[in-house]
Amino acid sequence: MPNPVILTGDRTTGPLHIGHYAGSLKNRLRLQDSHEQYLLLADTQALTDNASDVAKVRDSVLEVALDYLAVGIDPAKSTICLQSHLPALAELSMLYLNFVTVARLERNPTIKDEIRARGFGRDIPAGFLCYPAAQAADITAFRAGLVPVGADQAPLIEQTNEIVRRINAACGRPVLVEAEAFIPESGRLPGVDGGAKMSKSGGNAIRLSASADEISAAVRRMFTDPGHLRAEDPGRVEGNVVFQYLDAFDTERAEVSALKRHYRRGGLGDAVLKRRLEDILQALLAPIRTRRAALAREPGHVLDILRAGTAKAREVTGATRDSVVEGLGLLRLFEAEMVANAAKSDAAGKDLFTPA
Amino acid sequence: MPNPVILTGDRTTGPLHIGHYAGSLKNRLRLQDSHEQYLLLADTQALTDNASDVAKVRDSVLEVALDYLAVGIDPAKSTICLQSHLPALAELSMLYLNFVTVARLERNPTIKDEIRARGFGRDIPAGFLCYPAAQAADITAFRAGLVPVGADQAPLIEQTNEIVRRINAACGRPVLVEAEAFIPESGRLPGVDGGAKMSKSGGNAIRLSASADEISAAVRRMFTDPGHLRAEDPGRVEGNVVFQYLDAFDTERAEVSALKRHYRRGGLGDAVLKRRLEDILQALLAPIRTRRAALAREPGHVLDILRAGTAKAREVTGATRDSVVEGLGLLRLFEAEMVANAAKSDAAGKDLFTPA
Repeated sequence: MPNPVILTGDRTTGPLHIGHYAGSLKNRLRLQDSHEQYLLLADTQALTDNASDVAKVRDSVLEVALDYLAVGIDPAKSTICLQSHLPALAELSMLYLNFVTVARLERNPTIKDEIRARGFGRDIPAGFLCYPAAQAADITAFRAGLVPVGADQAPLIEQTNEIVRRINAACGRPVLVEAEAFIPESGRLPGVDGGAKMSKSGGNAIRLSASADEISAAVRRMFTDPGHLRAEDPGRVEGNVVFQYLDAFDTERAEVSALKRHYRRGGLGDAVLKRRLEDILQALLAPIRTRRAALAREPGHVLDILRAGTAKAREVTGATRDSVVEGLGLLRLFEAEMVANAAKSDAAGKDLFTPA
Repeated sequence: MPNPVILTGDRTTGPLHIGHYAGSLKNRLRLQDSHEQYLLLADTQALTDNASDVAKVRDSVLEVALDYLAVGIDPAKSTICLQSHLPALAELSMLYLNFVTVARLERNPTIKDEIRARGFGRDIPAGFLCYPAAQAADITAFRAGLVPVGADQAPLIEQTNEIVRRINAACGRPVLVEAEAFIPESGRLPGVDGGAKMSKSGGNAIRLSASADEISAAVRRMFTDPGHLRAEDPGRVEGNVVFQYLDAFDTERAEVSALKRHYRRGGLGDAVLKRRLEDILQALLAPIRTRRAALAREPGHVLDILRAGTAKAREVTGATRDSVVEGLGLLRLFEAEMVANAAKSDAAGKDLFTPA
């Protein structure tokens, strides 16, 4: 059996940061060699809670594409495509909405949490409530068997599979593929300020496009152990952002373990650790920044990559749409066989359209 | 100013009946000479509460198309098109869902009533709740200025216009057109049994394709005045289905008024009235039945009409989708100007993608 198709991607709400690198981009780089992989630039999904800032959503499409290419996503191996240009996703979403109840959408834990976190209350945009159906459309349209998600998003995959089973039941055969959540080992990287989440809007992120000075400044102000005032004091490793980043980016695991022991017993200053981390981040980001700048000088080339990927994705997702429409038994108007059959039935003197 | 575009159509849940003729088809025949008119065969909308009977939804597409053509809808004047084959409608629906809250959808009186009538309770299909946004997509995609609806559906037009105003506000200019409800004078025709609504499923309808015998039988069992036992007794005109049908189909208005007076004072038997109504309905439906049967023998021809209409509708609705996408400011990938601009910006050494 071939490896499952992977669907992943990002909401286009800003350029990516090193949290994305550790949490997903690194995996994608690895998986693109062994798997058919689609990277969806989710601009229409970004609209579900950014309808008031479309410019950000639009501009971020190219930012994120540049990030992908700069870190080494290879368009010959991974297909980068733009959600708003894949009508089959909207068509499948609208179909799926008939196979899921409002009560079920409201019960979705991810949606529930997000509604609470965003303070939407009763004024949830309908698009936000319906987002699990749209995500099911994304996943199934690409026939994805594996979907990398954060642990908190696993319920969305379960919801997708519920819709898959309903559609397959309605079709009387497995037209759609169930997907599996692929939850990366590395947890979410905290913000440089120790905030639970590194986020573009939180101002606690190091962007993939960060300059050398920005990296220095971010590492300098990085949250460590507020009780660790003098180098000779024992320090806490847990909740210490510098160590969390070393865990994520330092490939010398044994050395990091030794540093942790040293830090705990005292005698290791933050400055030494920060210098080590900064060197690692500078080495990681310098080539990415250079490639990104070069690509940014060729926007036409980047757009061509998006166009080619999106054209391929239109075919793939359109074919799924066609199978669902056919599987459910809706009329397919633009199909050669249909006309042939109609003509045949006509010639045989049989009325295709006997009143119900 | 040219006449407004008209969008109308039918959910494809069964062949049409004389209630449709009196309530909408007659108007469409009149309006097709003066207005650009689109007739939408709403198969995907029919799914919102018929997901368990897709075969009915599919088969009805051709039934309804045959009904249209049989009554005299002229494809050279009116564009007949199939909803499931117009991806722009799904795309606009998904966009609009971001501009309307769940609370607002739930408050929509039409939706509220329908949810109650259908006994959906908490288990409303999400597609059903979202239907006002989908209807807004239908109406606006065709740039319809006039939408014939029943009096009970006027709130849906109001909801559409709310979405129009929000999208136009988001675009900063009037990209979409507000629509006006066109509520026909003639009310809803009751069922032959006196039921409030003639319906395909209620078994109280006279189909446009009814045979002469079916028409006779339906008129024979038609509800009149249960207190009017002998011809010489005074009879009630109100709630008397025969008179309601005469009001709808008898063109000799003065004669109908005289008959009503006669019936009220007594001395006019139901049989006489029923014979008059039957003659009228037989005369109305005989040529429709003949044309319908002839068309049914040429399904390829009917499909060609649907294909041509749908192809035209794809262009019209796709152009609206493009204006909304452009108006909102989303990236448009497949546009020649974009590449040209990008190249220009590149040549000038300006970076299109400055980090946000």
